[in-house]
Amino acid sequence: MIAATVVVQLKKLLGEKGVLDQPADLALYEYDGGVDKHRPDVVVFPRDTAQVVAIVNLAREAGVPFVGRGAGTGLSGGVIARRGGIMISFARMNKILDIDLENERITVQPGVVSLDVTLAVQAQKDFYAPDPSSQRACTIGGNVAENAGGPHTLAYGVTTNHVLGLEMVLPDGSVVTTGGAEQDLPGYDLVGLMTGSEGTMGLVTNVVLRLMRQPELVKTTLAIFNSPADAGNAVGEITARAITPVAVEMLDGVMLRMVEEATHAGYPLDAAAVLLIELEGLKEAVEEQVEQVREACLACGAREFRIAKSEEERALLWKGRKNAFGAVGRLSPFYYVQDGVVPRTKIAATLQEIGRIGEKYGLTISNIFHAGDGNMHPIILFDARKPGELEKAQHAGEDILKYCVSVGGSITGEHGVGMEKMELMADLFTPDTLDMIGRFKSLFDPTCLLNPDKVLPTGRGCMEIRQKPVTAETML
Amino acid sequence: MIAATVVVQLKKLLGEKGVLDQPADLALYEYDGGVDKHRPDVVVFPRDTAQVVAIVNLAREAGVPFVGRGAGTGLSGGVIARRGGIMISFARMNKILDIDLENERITVQPGVVSLDVTLAVQAQKDFYAPDPSSQRACTIGGNVAENAGGPHTLAYGVTTNHVLGLEMVLPDGSVVTTGGAEQDLPGYDLVGLMTGSEGTMGLVTNVVLRLMRQPELVKTTLAIFNSPADAGNAVGEITARAITPVAVEMLDGVMLRMVEEATHAGYPLDAAAVLLIELEGLKEAVEEQVEQVREACLACGAREFRIAKSEEERALLWKGRKNAFGAVGRLSPFYYVQDGVVPRTKIAATLQEIGRIGEKYGLTISNIFHAGDGNMHPIILFDARKPGELEKAQHAGEDILKYCVSVGGSITGEHGVGMEKMELMADLFTPDTLDMIGRFKSLFDPTCLLNPDKVLPTGRGCMEIRQKPVTAETML
Repeated sequence: MIAATVVVQLKKLLGEKGVLDQPADLALYEYDGGVDKHRPDVVVFPRDTAQVVAIVNLAREAGVPFVGRGAGTGLSGGVIARRGGIMISFARMNKILDIDLENERITVQPGVVSLDVTLAVQAQKDFYAPDPSSQRACTIGGNVAENAGGPHTLAYGVTTNHVLGLEMVLPDGSVVTTGGAEQDLPGYDLVGLMTGSEGTMGLVTNVVLRLMRQPELVKTTLAIFNSPADAGNAVGEITARAITPVAVEMLDGVMLRMVEEATHAGYPLDAAAVLLIELEGLKEAVEEQVEQVREACLACGAREFRIAKSEEERALLWKGRKNAFGAVGRLSPFYYVQDGVVPRTKIAATLQEIGRIGEKYGLTISNIFHAGDGNMHPIILFDARKPGELEKAQHAGEDILKYCVSVGGSITGEHGVGMEKMELMADLFTPDTLDMIGRFKSLFDPTCLLNPDKVLPTGRGCMEIRQKPVTAETML
Repeated sequence: MIAATVVVQLKKLLGEKGVLDQPADLALYEYDGGVDKHRPDVVVFPRDTAQVVAIVNLAREAGVPFVGRGAGTGLSGGVIARRGGIMISFARMNKILDIDLENERITVQPGVVSLDVTLAVQAQKDFYAPDPSSQRACTIGGNVAENAGGPHTLAYGVTTNHVLGLEMVLPDGSVVTTGGAEQDLPGYDLVGLMTGSEGTMGLVTNVVLRLMRQPELVKTTLAIFNSPADAGNAVGEITARAITPVAVEMLDGVMLRMVEEATHAGYPLDAAAVLLIELEGLKEAVEEQVEQVREACLACGAREFRIAKSEEERALLWKGRKNAFGAVGRLSPFYYVQDGVVPRTKIAATLQEIGRIGEKYGLTISNIFHAGDGNMHPIILFDARKPGELEKAQHAGEDILKYCVSVGGSITGEHGVGMEKMELMADLFTPDTLDMIGRFKSLFDPTCLLNPDKVLPTGRGCMEIRQKPVTAETML
């Protein structure tokens, strides 16, 4: 529990309206989009970098843990104040500071909503490429912390490929500005290192992002398959033809039926899998590529290939994809989203293995994922009210990730390690490598106050305390 | 000077043929492609990771500095053994270990020549994207150390965008393997951090690279201008039309005359600047883009726009570009290549400023550069035999870089900081940021034995000794 004097100091610094410390308020800040939770002692709302520095100095001097927070849409518990302490919300640092269209850059505060970056420049035909499914809610600071992806990362890359510069406050209170002018500045790649460090190295207070020009034409297509393996093979075949769609999303039969019932996007109810494939670029190129993608899909056994004929049809297809999680929620009171990566050539085998794991635990697992990247999102349906089902779901998730690692993949594509997957890091990295990651963390934060007990397995680096895992009781 | 016992131990470890310690041999290893030089005490040639570990352990225990070396084509002195000690050449770790075309990966040892990666897969219509001008000689290990670029980085990014995984030996002798399966693995981005750290953090012993599919069509064009400012503006206009050529190279009038005399590539002798623009992709797209690029260039005042009609014409245009440095050597006994970056919109102004700086010092400065990235390569012609000319050339280079920084750019685009630009880092970064970089260096190498006195300004981190700068005497 935090000392009352610290709260008094925070209120003096930020004003009464800049601090929340009542239990009813704090309850709203104890979870993210994942399954874990823990309540902070106080939530504060700085308005500028100087206030962030003051909060960090105050926390460090009082020995109180602190963690930054964007919109709380993360899926791996990265933002959870698992040792209590101060949660620093960036909700009021939400301004777009500068738009430089000529040099294709935009400077924003971390609390700016991800989609708002594109909205600010779309009239000038620019856009910001990373598009996590939560883009209407999540914020740039959180995107940088988690190195967020999205359906369109296949062609455009993830957040780290679009961050040109950062201002950040380190745990010792120093303010570091790095990058800004250009990507790939001299010296060590601190922008790259900070991006994806899951809020464990510093607090980002200012971000320079890369903008891109809108393509001339976008075409969205739907390929329908009677076998998930065929759909998986089609992904490889498209790549082999040297085509990089901007998005290749797969929905399996279970998922597409749930989505169709909820959104009436026009997905076929009897198919085993569909691929939602989007192509962008100059008109002539896109039309040629659509034809080649059609050929690739038909060659791999697609029973039908549809092309959206209007903006409305396009939007409807994407509505099905982007609202998939809501559709699952209609059918199952609880679900657990996983986030593993496999080489593209292993997609078909991984889908089979996920089916086997579902049978083993007696749970329905549906699949919706960024197939072009091999970034799987199995969604495990369960009912936390039935004894043992949460644990089964968690074991099933772990089995799936271990399989991903065994075929040369990874335990997370875009949701991060957070507190959910810390222990699994030991399956992915050697002790020497984990030790090196721990040394980085200690370098920035020797007393382990910034977002403690995340990313690394228990006992590694300064991550010594392992919070009790979530239970059905804490979840209900 | 290194103790004789260390050399004996090295010979025991690697055999007589694995060690060079005679002055005549060592003289070949005292320079790179830049102007600085210093002789190592011994050069060793390990054949595998275990030997690298043994060398590092031996060096550390004896307190002897050590530095890794690829082909020595670097341009900023990054590979120079400025405190003597052991130079670890990767010339015998030059095997391609695995080619996985289905998942578009190749695993190589660090001594593999850059171009050989593409040669190994081109029959299967794949290629490795980064193409530094030295690609026929330079090696992958050096490319990773320097985060090498090249003309085609405009569309494909620099080396860090193509490295999926690394095995490296840290200064404490531990072997760390990171990445491999996919880009953007969880945990901190160690692959990204290591790439571009200029050989100061660890020795790379194994690299997993990303391969790409060859495009269907490549078109190379030449736009000819009567004013460098118009050429600069055309670069911005192409971007504004949402076209990303794979390369946009600019040669100014001084340079194109030197190049034309040497290579007879067909460059116009009376022009003020040319843009060499290459487009790649599906046939229909490329043809449409060529038309748009032509329009953009003519709208900005190009007097002529040529399209290479055959593979021979294409090769000839590139021959002019790729052999530019040789062409300069025919005319001037000495030249000094700089490497600054400016925002694309500042190219025209920067060319004017370079002209003014040339006049100020009474030196001819020609320009050839990656215009699409704003990555300038002014080439300063001088004669080291004339007293004071080397110093003038160096001052002119420094003036140019300071101007680049002042307009929001950077002191190096792709050649690195090395020992050439350490002091200029203080113009680009705040003391807090430099301090942070220094802490990283110390974390890996607390006793400062690995590639010492590079990257950071004197007195920062463990970089305490500043070697005397190059003089006309040491150069001649």
